[in-house]
Amino acid sequence: MGNKMTVYADNAATTKISPAALKAMLPYLDEAYANPSSIHSAGKAAADAVYRARVELAENLGCLPNELYFTSGGSEANNQAILTAAEIGAAENKKHIITSKIEHPSVLRVLKRLGTQGYEITLLDVGENGIVSLADVERAIRPDTCLVTIMAANNEIGTIQPAAEIGEICRKFSVLFHTDAVSAAGYIDIKPGALCADLLSLSAHKFHGPKGIGLLYAKKGVMPSQLILGGSQERGRRAGTLNVPAIVGMAAAFSEACVNMAKDNQKIARLRDKIIEGLLSIPGAKLHGDRTRRLAGNINVGFGGISGESLLLALDSFGIMVSTGSACEAGAAEPSHVLLALGLSEKEAKSAIRITLGRYNTELEANYIVECTAKAVGRLRSIANLEF
Amino acid sequence: MGNKMTVYADNAATTKISPAALKAMLPYLDEAYANPSSIHSAGKAAADAVYRARVELAENLGCLPNELYFTSGGSEANNQAILTAAEIGAAENKKHIITSKIEHPSVLRVLKRLGTQGYEITLLDVGENGIVSLADVERAIRPDTCLVTIMAANNEIGTIQPAAEIGEICRKFSVLFHTDAVSAAGYIDIKPGALCADLLSLSAHKFHGPKGIGLLYAKKGVMPSQLILGGSQERGRRAGTLNVPAIVGMAAAFSEACVNMAKDNQKIARLRDKIIEGLLSIPGAKLHGDRTRRLAGNINVGFGGISGESLLLALDSFGIMVSTGSACEAGAAEPSHVLLALGLSEKEAKSAIRITLGRYNTELEANYIVECTAKAVGRLRSIANLEF
Repeated sequence: MGNKMTVYADNAATTKISPAALKAMLPYLDEAYANPSSIHSAGKAAADAVYRARVELAENLGCLPNELYFTSGGSEANNQAILTAAEIGAAENKKHIITSKIEHPSVLRVLKRLGTQGYEITLLDVGENGIVSLADVERAIRPDTCLVTIMAANNEIGTIQPAAEIGEICRKFSVLFHTDAVSAAGYIDIKPGALCADLLSLSAHKFHGPKGIGLLYAKKGVMPSQLILGGSQERGRRAGTLNVPAIVGMAAAFSEACVNMAKDNQKIARLRDKIIEGLLSIPGAKLHGDRTRRLAGNINVGFGGISGESLLLALDSFGIMVSTGSACEAGAAEPSHVLLALGLSEKEAKSAIRITLGRYNTELEANYIVECTAKAVGRLRSIANLEF
Repeated sequence: MGNKMTVYADNAATTKISPAALKAMLPYLDEAYANPSSIHSAGKAAADAVYRARVELAENLGCLPNELYFTSGGSEANNQAILTAAEIGAAENKKHIITSKIEHPSVLRVLKRLGTQGYEITLLDVGENGIVSLADVERAIRPDTCLVTIMAANNEIGTIQPAAEIGEICRKFSVLFHTDAVSAAGYIDIKPGALCADLLSLSAHKFHGPKGIGLLYAKKGVMPSQLILGGSQERGRRAGTLNVPAIVGMAAAFSEACVNMAKDNQKIARLRDKIIEGLLSIPGAKLHGDRTRRLAGNINVGFGGISGESLLLALDSFGIMVSTGSACEAGAAEPSHVLLALGLSEKEAKSAIRITLGRYNTELEANYIVECTAKAVGRLRSIANLEF
């Protein structure tokens, strides 16, 4: 092979900004720079841009513009959502929260802290395919349950949860339902109305928008708690100068993702299936997560006897960018809590790599990924004198 | 006047991004989009960019790179700084905090909340020039004081506090010192070492950097409390995908501001003084804050009998963008807490406008501001049948 290809297959970590989103942002990064809280004309123009973005996002989410609160990203939105439900619960002396073992650290770590503050946290198991059981959710609900928080789709294994059904159960028992839709947004419908979600979190850079901007949806009547206090931005619920270019870029990227979802998904899923098929023909390969109820772009796979990190580095030398588990936890020595929750051994969990495709991946790249992975697995096994 | 000029004189609300900062950001907004937490080559390249930015900022601040933590802006940095000191204090059973009456809402509102959580807050008065008395600070310190938080310069009246001397007092009594340097950065030296600051907050968009990015300095040995929990970014002290383009833009903007500080300040202060002189020749004009110990670009002035908001709108019709008080509180019906703390009446406080100049303002603009303000004040007074 003469010229090395460069293949970005780590779209769950972050995505390339779309040209449309970048184009929408640029004027607000440069000339139209006023603070939208300023009341002069330039400030008004910036505030109008924020308002248009809010309306556009609300239309795509099927909600009201004032049910949306801009945050600095998905982690902040998840933190704020959980804090909100926890404080509402505390006011009614309900301090029990239900979640799953495979949530993102920005959910699990906040819950862990709440666990030291008088809250009781139920961590639901998931099946070996990574799916939460509806019966388990319903069984876990108690009179003092204030919140169920279950992600719409998992960031590591791409498993799509039955969020709408969980939302319905929560509604039946009058329990708030939050869904971390950071990994799902742009790939599946995450309209809060359809999911019966009272709280929902998004992050723009996961759907070809800019980094540093996220969104908290809080249903009318659910007043977000203040995580960042200060000025009266976002109706007093989130202080800090609004990041106008990023807000505008997020709205543009989300519209684009929603409009093209079916088409993009079809293409991406086809590439994914091709890669899965190719990789599963390598001896000792094992796919983690559900075969069909998974995000169009997600492949999480392990090859017996090979460490995921070695394979990642070998693929990197071929110009292919993948990850082992979540980028947020990259460098962590511990095996993925998600894979362990599926019942994998530590060794199996450490052997996994995550290949995540997006809108800009091609068939040529998919073929290259399979070819190079087979080569890399073969080499690593021959170095280690492993036979399969 | 044929063509209306457009004069941006609201640089304390936000600033135009510098061409150098924008140029530095663009590659990371577009092609170099990887997540710096990813361990493949593209992630490594992004992490290297973040590292270079961190080192550049540290050099300009005279501190260690790992004393810096990226946040989403000044409000978050202020929140986190205070939470940090409060938690350190609580561990030693020290729950008394000293601040001034003219701090930013992102300081005062956090302190107000702490006041409901068992902390005792001493709000120091300021002189009629807006300056905190060193004797007051020293007198307020008690054995259970865990933190003194005083801003380096005020966002509304531009008053420069004796931060270094306050820092020395704090050091003498082994009390943590935090300074909100959001308004000061780029205009005066805010090296934490020079200010004896243990904690310091910055926001890039105040010094011609991008919105949505700030910095918390925490001196070696002072471990920041986690405000946003989740992934292990920023050594586990601040979760969320790093906003690479904004970080790179902030570093470029801060270097530029530091290199050009003396030159820019000289030019800006000359324009400021020219405007102050011109405005004070209008009958009934009064300058708020200290005449000399103020930021180069800050003018806060009231004209007897005229509401600041009316004057702001009149100037806007001339193409001149100014503010009444802080943009964060714009639209608030209450008079500025800063101006009230100087001893102004509610009416006087509501008559103030804030004109804040920056690097890109010109002499022609300064003349135009004086000319139009005189005209606007005259008109507003004639409408109201006021004589001066």
